[in-house]
Amino acid sequence: MSDWSKTLPGFLDRTWAEIARGVADAQSPMRYVVLATKNLEDGPEARMVALRGANRTDGTVQVHTDIGSTKVAELRADPRAALHLWDPEAQLQLRLRGNMTITTGAEVTKTWAKVPPLSRPSYGVTPAPGTPIPSSDAYDRAPNEAQFAVLTLTIAEFDTVHLAPDYHRRALFSRHDGWQGTWRAP
Amino acid sequence: MSDWSKTLPGFLDRTWAEIARGVADAQSPMRYVVLATKNLEDGPEARMVALRGANRTDGTVQVHTDIGSTKVAELRADPRAALHLWDPEAQLQLRLRGNMTITTGAEVTKTWAKVPPLSRPSYGVTPAPGTPIPSSDAYDRAPNEAQFAVLTLTIAEFDTVHLAPDYHRRALFSRHDGWQGTWRAP
Repeated sequence: MSDWSKTLPGFLDRTWAEIARGVADAQSPMRYVVLATKNLEDGPEARMVALRGANRTDGTVQVHTDIGSTKVAELRADPRAALHLWDPEAQLQLRLRGNMTITTGAEVTKTWAKVPPLSRPSYGVTPAPGTPIPSSDAYDRAPNEAQFAVLTLTIAEFDTVHLAPDYHRRALFSRHDGWQGTWRAP
Repeated sequence: MSDWSKTLPGFLDRTWAEIARGVADAQSPMRYVVLATKNLEDGPEARMVALRGANRTDGTVQVHTDIGSTKVAELRADPRAALHLWDPEAQLQLRLRGNMTITTGAEVTKTWAKVPPLSRPSYGVTPAPGTPIPSSDAYDRAPNEAQFAVLTLTIAEFDTVHLAPDYHRRALFSRHDGWQGTWRAP
C-alpha cells in the first residue's frame, strides 16, 4: 500500500523527487526518458534523451544534445515538446508537456565545463546525426563545444499516473493553477 | 564486442527478435514502450503502452487500448504515430514510424477472448481516462468488450541505434526499399 499518491501534494512531491533522482543518479530509471516532438513533416517523433537538470521552483527540466541533431531543427520549427518518464519499481509514469528553449554558445560555457570528458564526444558528431553514411563507422565523434546545446523544458503541466497493483491513481498538475493539481480517471 | 549490428541484415534480425520478445515476455524491456502521437492541439504527446502483437511479414505491431482514451481521438484526427522501444541490456533503441489503424467491435472479438481476465478491466474505465474526478478513486474499471480497441501500426520505417560502449551504430530501415536498410551517422 503506497501512501505517497493518496494526496495531491504527496503525489507532486514524489514526482519531483523522482525527477531529481533521475538527474542525480545515472542508474535511476528516470535518467533515460523519451522526448516527443513534431517532425518537419508535422508528424510525431520520439527518441531517448538523458535527464541532465531539474528546477522545481522554475518548473523546468533540462537535457543536452548535439546542435546538429534533428530534434533541434524540429524544436526550432515548433517548440512544443513532451517528455515521458517511467519508473517500473514505483510504477509511476510522468508525462511532462511544455515548450522547449534551445541555448548554445557563451550561455552554456559553464554547463559544458561540467560535462564529463567521456560524454563530450556525443556533442560533435560529423556528419550530423541521421545523415546517410556508406558504412556503419563512417563518422567521427569529437568533442566540440560549438555543437553543444542545452534544451530547457518549461513545464506547462504534468500528467502523473501511479499504477499500483490494486488501484490506479492519476493526477494532472498545471502551472496555471500553481500546481495544485486535480484527480483524473486513470 | 557485439556482432549483430555489424551488418544491416543482422541489425534487422535482432530488431525483430527484440520486438518478438517484447510481445511474448512481460518481463522484457521492450514490453512497455512509448507511443507518440499528435494531440488535438497539434502538439506532441507521449504515453506508455504494452506491446501485444508483431508480424514481421506485414511489418506491423499491435497495442491494445480503451476506445475512450485520448490517444484514440488523436489517432482518428491524424493516424501518424511513433513507437519508442529501448532495451538497456542490449543498448538498443528502436524508433518505429508509421500509420495506426484502429479496430473495434466484431473484428476484435477473437483478440478480446485472449486478453487475460486480470487485464480486462483496463478496457472499460468510467468515466473515460483523463476525465477530471473529485477524488482519486471516483472511477470504475469493469471489463467491457465494447470499449476494447486494437491499434495496429503499419511500420513505414524504423530507425535503430546500437549504443555499444566503444562505438555507436545506427541504421534506417524503410518499407519502400524492402527493408534493405542504410547506415546513418549516430
